[in-house]
Amino acid sequence: MSELKIELIAIGDELLMGHTLDSNSHWIARKLAESGMRLAGMRWSADEETVLLNHLANVWGQSDIVILCGGLGPTHDDVTRPILAKFFDDQLEHRSDLAGMLLDRFRRRGIDPSPGWEAMVTFPKGAAAIPNNAGAAPGIHYVRDGKQLFAAPGVPAEMKGMVEDYVLPRIKDLRRGVYRFRTIRTVGAGESRLSSMIGDPFGLLPARLAFLPGVETGVTLRLSLFGDDPLEVDRILDAAAESVRVKIREYIFAEGELRLEEAIVAAASQKGITLSAAESCTGGMITARIVNAPGASKVFDRGFVTYSNEAKSRMLGVRINTLKRFGAVSPETAVEMAEGALAVSGSTLAISVTGIAGPDGGTPAKPVGLVFIALASDSQTLVERHQFIGSRADNRERATLAALNLLWKGVTNA
Amino acid sequence: MSELKIELIAIGDELLMGHTLDSNSHWIARKLAESGMRLAGMRWSADEETVLLNHLANVWGQSDIVILCGGLGPTHDDVTRPILAKFFDDQLEHRSDLAGMLLDRFRRRGIDPSPGWEAMVTFPKGAAAIPNNAGAAPGIHYVRDGKQLFAAPGVPAEMKGMVEDYVLPRIKDLRRGVYRFRTIRTVGAGESRLSSMIGDPFGLLPARLAFLPGVETGVTLRLSLFGDDPLEVDRILDAAAESVRVKIREYIFAEGELRLEEAIVAAASQKGITLSAAESCTGGMITARIVNAPGASKVFDRGFVTYSNEAKSRMLGVRINTLKRFGAVSPETAVEMAEGALAVSGSTLAISVTGIAGPDGGTPAKPVGLVFIALASDSQTLVERHQFIGSRADNRERATLAALNLLWKGVTNA
Repeated sequence: MSELKIELIAIGDELLMGHTLDSNSHWIARKLAESGMRLAGMRWSADEETVLLNHLANVWGQSDIVILCGGLGPTHDDVTRPILAKFFDDQLEHRSDLAGMLLDRFRRRGIDPSPGWEAMVTFPKGAAAIPNNAGAAPGIHYVRDGKQLFAAPGVPAEMKGMVEDYVLPRIKDLRRGVYRFRTIRTVGAGESRLSSMIGDPFGLLPARLAFLPGVETGVTLRLSLFGDDPLEVDRILDAAAESVRVKIREYIFAEGELRLEEAIVAAASQKGITLSAAESCTGGMITARIVNAPGASKVFDRGFVTYSNEAKSRMLGVRINTLKRFGAVSPETAVEMAEGALAVSGSTLAISVTGIAGPDGGTPAKPVGLVFIALASDSQTLVERHQFIGSRADNRERATLAALNLLWKGVTNA
Repeated sequence: MSELKIELIAIGDELLMGHTLDSNSHWIARKLAESGMRLAGMRWSADEETVLLNHLANVWGQSDIVILCGGLGPTHDDVTRPILAKFFDDQLEHRSDLAGMLLDRFRRRGIDPSPGWEAMVTFPKGAAAIPNNAGAAPGIHYVRDGKQLFAAPGVPAEMKGMVEDYVLPRIKDLRRGVYRFRTIRTVGAGESRLSSMIGDPFGLLPARLAFLPGVETGVTLRLSLFGDDPLEVDRILDAAAESVRVKIREYIFAEGELRLEEAIVAAASQKGITLSAAESCTGGMITARIVNAPGASKVFDRGFVTYSNEAKSRMLGVRINTLKRFGAVSPETAVEMAEGALAVSGSTLAISVTGIAGPDGGTPAKPVGLVFIALASDSQTLVERHQFIGSRADNRERATLAALNLLWKGVTNA
């Protein structure tokens, strides 16, 4: 049984010019994988008729499913509708049913119809309209030659709604064989360390092992396999995952798509532990991640962003003397920040971060990238020293991950 | 003079499976644009010989320059070296000079050679090695048929070093004509509103106008033009930008790559204004963005993440009675949060956000997505009501942007 061949075209000069990060294609690829399917290819197309027609001709011949993303809005650079009509030797017509729906939508939201809105309902005759629950422009669905093409807008919320509600249910039915994977999420060890602990990846065949490093997430391990029989695929993957797991157990914080902050919130919630955070160089990034986890309100009630020395002493009770003698970036200050957050919030655990994110502010004794992280509980306070080497944004991301890692250890050991 | 045609192939199953966000291609596209060149196309290739050979055959024929990214590491799924050798009818040979350099590098860093390191120096005979200053695997440079191909590793720091130090200097010399753009950044108006204010984009020709909406950034306008004469291109773009600018002046916060938080910090710093923030549903996202702007320490000294009612009243002095009578998500609470942050921090301006990010917690009277934002100064407190429609993450992003927009207005009007 051969795999269903799915190709994606992301349309927009803004991608090719480096103005927009293409997170849409990443999201679509992930959704397909979660549904047991794999994207065969993805390409960026300019907003130009000859270029897009050329890509369409290329992928249509060799695919079962083609997904387009972008170019369906009301402005002049939204070229997908006329180009698709041309490609399928079709014509555009004003669709009064779609116009009615759109005007109704504008009315219900109490806003004026966007200028140029009629372009969005000047629609290919031979195609079905895909409802847009998050915005205005309808998507386009062609069925031709036993193949299907879906076109969604580039606005992420609109694209996501269409793919989840309309596209995925239709192509899941066509799936041949199954692509499955296991995801093991780790924190605290690098790729090469994990790789040497696991040993020869060929021992895991036919399952394939990949290492996916990420500053925000720690290293993710992915075991994957395509096959005809879902039960057999699952059996092989489960065995392979277990043989990996036993070798690196201490670094695993979750399986699947759970993020580190979600694992922290879930574990804290289950244990009845509450958390607080005191941040200097990370400026709210740790609390922003914790609060984004579902159920955060059960375990987290406050965070302190104490960027200045005065804020550290006023909000957390860090002693002026400590700041003077050891400096704001010191293990002593980190400890007093965490202990202050613990005392003020009354939480079970408090994490603190103070460091020099750069690019300025470094000295020979305290270079850019130096970060201290402390974890306080009623019984003890731990403090860690880290030296990161990266841009300001990298250093802040790494400090956030290191702090979440320490918090994770604190929650699991509590 | 025709434009230099540059194609990019990003190699790796992890892209097609949605495990890795392709920020490398975005970075390369941006670097090319900053150097006056435009990427003609980008595609993702699986780690499979037939697939990658097919993509190479496709792009090599129609391009002047091909850049490959990924698949040069030491592990079994690093397939770029042998596939390139096959494509160019070349052979791999052990390069003792590269091996010596690599072993020397490991020795200097005091680490053992990574397992399988010899694969990285088993190198195509007919290609030059691109030095890797950030890691182990050398890049590959082929010159054939008056065209050039560059292959870099997928590890971002290694790829970036090679592109900046080796690839860009070489292809800049080949540039024909120049691609330039102007970027106007706005906040507070949607794409269609700006579009109708600007009017017919064909009046701006030959400059092309594009609208780039972004939840995190507001709408960015991009005017671009390719031409032979840089002075003429600049003259046309400057005139077009000015004709756009005069029509939408009130929504512009910056030109170029400046982010909204950077504009806020720069303007506040210049005016001697200090800022603080009190966040509930955004949980630190506003302060995290402000603190990421260079120079933030001059204008920002503290932030309050008050997720629970108790935190709101303890940290900011929000009255229990206000919370009881109007609820945590109410204009009254938003106002008291902002005024509390102003009083406690002693800043010139304080922004507050309280809302229901979802997915739970909504009621008919206060649905998911309802957010109140207040801005307090010594003389007055403004409060805004927003109703967003999106996922938890979307609602929090939109609330953050709306708060930064209000803060921006506060700073510019102060």
